[in-house]
Amino acid sequence: MTSNAHTAWDGLILGASLATLDAPAGYADILDGALAWKDGALAYVGPRSGLPDAPQRLAREVIEAKGWITPGLVDCHTHLVFAGDRAREFELRLLGASYEDIARSGGGILSTVRATRAADEGELLRQSLPRAHALISDGATTVEIKSGYGLDFDNERKMLRVARRLEQLGIGVRTTYLAAHALPPEYAGRADDYIDAAIEWLPKLHAEGLVDAVDAFCEGIGFTPEQTRRMFEAARALGLPVKLHADQLSDLGGGALAAAFDGLSADHVEHTSEDSVRAMAQAGTVAVLLPGAFHVLRETALPPLEAFRAHGVPMAVATDCNPGTSPLQSLRHAMQLACTHFRLSPEEALRGATVNAARALGLHDRGVLRVGARADFVLWNIQHPAELCYWLGGRLAQSVHAGGHRVT
Amino acid sequence: MTSNAHTAWDGLILGASLATLDAPAGYADILDGALAWKDGALAYVGPRSGLPDAPQRLAREVIEAKGWITPGLVDCHTHLVFAGDRAREFELRLLGASYEDIARSGGGILSTVRATRAADEGELLRQSLPRAHALISDGATTVEIKSGYGLDFDNERKMLRVARRLEQLGIGVRTTYLAAHALPPEYAGRADDYIDAAIEWLPKLHAEGLVDAVDAFCEGIGFTPEQTRRMFEAARALGLPVKLHADQLSDLGGGALAAAFDGLSADHVEHTSEDSVRAMAQAGTVAVLLPGAFHVLRETALPPLEAFRAHGVPMAVATDCNPGTSPLQSLRHAMQLACTHFRLSPEEALRGATVNAARALGLHDRGVLRVGARADFVLWNIQHPAELCYWLGGRLAQSVHAGGHRVT
Ligand SMILES: [Zn+2]
Ligand SMILES: [Zn+2]
Repeated sequence: MTSNAHTAWDGLILGASLATLDAPAGYADILDGALAWKDGALAYVGPRSGLPDAPQRLAREVIEAKGWITPGLVDCHTHLVFAGDRAREFELRLLGASYEDIARSGGGILSTVRATRAADEGELLRQSLPRAHALISDGATTVEIKSGYGLDFDNERKMLRVARRLEQLGIGVRTTYLAAHALPPEYAGRADDYIDAAIEWLPKLHAEGLVDAVDAFCEGIGFTPEQTRRMFEAARALGLPVKLHADQLSDLGGGALAAAFDGLSADHVEHTSEDSVRAMAQAGTVAVLLPGAFHVLRETALPPLEAFRAHGVPMAVATDCNPGTSPLQSLRHAMQLACTHFRLSPEEALRGATVNAARALGLHDRGVLRVGARADFVLWNIQHPAELCYWLGGRLAQSVHAGGHRVT
Repeated sequence: MTSNAHTAWDGLILGASLATLDAPAGYADILDGALAWKDGALAYVGPRSGLPDAPQRLAREVIEAKGWITPGLVDCHTHLVFAGDRAREFELRLLGASYEDIARSGGGILSTVRATRAADEGELLRQSLPRAHALISDGATTVEIKSGYGLDFDNERKMLRVARRLEQLGIGVRTTYLAAHALPPEYAGRADDYIDAAIEWLPKLHAEGLVDAVDAFCEGIGFTPEQTRRMFEAARALGLPVKLHADQLSDLGGGALAAAFDGLSADHVEHTSEDSVRAMAQAGTVAVLLPGAFHVLRETALPPLEAFRAHGVPMAVATDCNPGTSPLQSLRHAMQLACTHFRLSPEEALRGATVNAARALGLHDRGVLRVGARADFVLWNIQHPAELCYWLGGRLAQSVHAGGHRVT
């Protein structure tokens, strides 16, 4: 609530209410607020009445607004760079096909790997852009994007390059190296060898500036805790933070494993034990809830929400946007599903898609409305922040700003 | 697949695939198709190769397109005209408030009645417009809208007038008189008297051209079958078709009751008995599935889908857009929920939101792509019709046309 109005602000919005989230609990709201920015950072966050008279003179652009302003949404877990889709597989499953039928007909994750390998970089960008646009139009200003459908050096590199190129939309992009997502057919029966190779690719990709974090799919149908540990050690050697697809279908101690490496986050966590929760609390590892996959797979085992709350593990909410288990292109929608399926409160869901999501990416310059933070914010056509979780569909965002610039 | 190309068509789209739904089963698709319209009706529906050479000369406007064209979506059950919202109630419930707490704090359906009564016609229109826009932008070209938050003559009239005014958006609107939605406070303890009053209002509203059908909420917490029957008899006396909120929370024989009046549809139908299903099949009464309310209320009792299929009862899918149990502003989203929660196939869901939904409104001039039908259609950015049910969120509609005119 301080101001640095010595020089003209780039922009100023007057009259909307602010859900700053800049407090340990509650929306930390400011009714009839004002928000100003300069050089990409927030310069005033406070009540309109805290401004001098004739505030119109303070900024180059002044907007009189109604509704609410929240921090820009942060989608901290996506696989949105991929080619093709799996709608036909979705349909076959609803028509009664078994997973084996699907695999025999060429479906499953390897069909996405084939399509992603076959697309050149321009085509992969072209197919990924509408999904990024959809996320932005529903309020996202920072998006994490994983590799993991390339599964060889050139194609993992291509995916990460496309992810970086999505920064051209004006949003923040964080890339995560997820070569340990699935075993490519050329390594069938040789998972350890594949992990060796993936570990070898990592420093080269990191040297190109393509990797912000490292992730793995630690699961009975994925990689073992031991293989995951080796990948994480490679990350640690490069000073890269880790995240983990943990305990989605069974408890392999993924939460504790992520915590043991001071992981930024453990994601999915439906089957995470209380021991893991304790370890996550100590390490500051965020629990990333992915209700889209829970919804699509019609799961019934809830993440240990009460344990996360009791031990003070921050909870984030993300889309998990991917073609197989979560074809979800709206973070607001993920928040709705988190409230419906997991009974999160709307405030928890909003924190989960802003301040806690930023933390799950190791980012401390966004996710709240606070002077000095990045000028990432959304002006919503709503009367109360709970509406963000309440409506299914609809167009609620009036405008979305990243680094002070309007991105939709 | 005939053509009346003697005179110039108003418009022609070339190259997209068509899911005409103009067959008892399947998408009835035409790859590399062409669609033409004139004077608001479809004039050619068929393969591009069925057109003469240089088809560009056949129409005033020619569009080269990719993707798929489906019939315009028909949302056959909404309550989208209302004032206020119930997001705060949604939040309180997630924070642990009981229904009694909510009622004591002034929530529940009567809070929507208060807000709707308090808004004048212009304000009610202003608040309803964004919801109608949202439905259209996701493909709806016909929307049914119920009264039922006015609960007195003037306010039911106001709601129906606002519904009619939404035709200004270029879409088809069908109005349904649902005074028998809830008991207004001024009639507390006198439900029969209220039904008498509502029956008295009906011919006046009908005389103003405000009523296309009559509906009631027949439920333990709503009106009895006997009260419903009286309302339906009043409708029959005016030659108005009926629909029914039937068997949502318990089996009151609502399906059979609707069928006994040759009802257009029985809606919700989670607890409908096989006897009712048989009666519906004989009467041609459509089963309208409302997965939004099922989702939000976290219901578990599925409608008798196999019985509907076995007895040949057509199934429709609608948003039930309303502030209490289904704040759902996308029919495509309702289709996704129908596939996820009810295991409808994508084809069943698409039929449910087009041809069967039109039938649930007694409309036989739309819901399929066929020469002579209304030129209501959507051009989608998709590779396969199943994508309409697969993606959660995103912007898939390239353009939406109603009566040949672009409405978004
Ligand atoms: Zn994932
Ligand atoms: Zn309803």
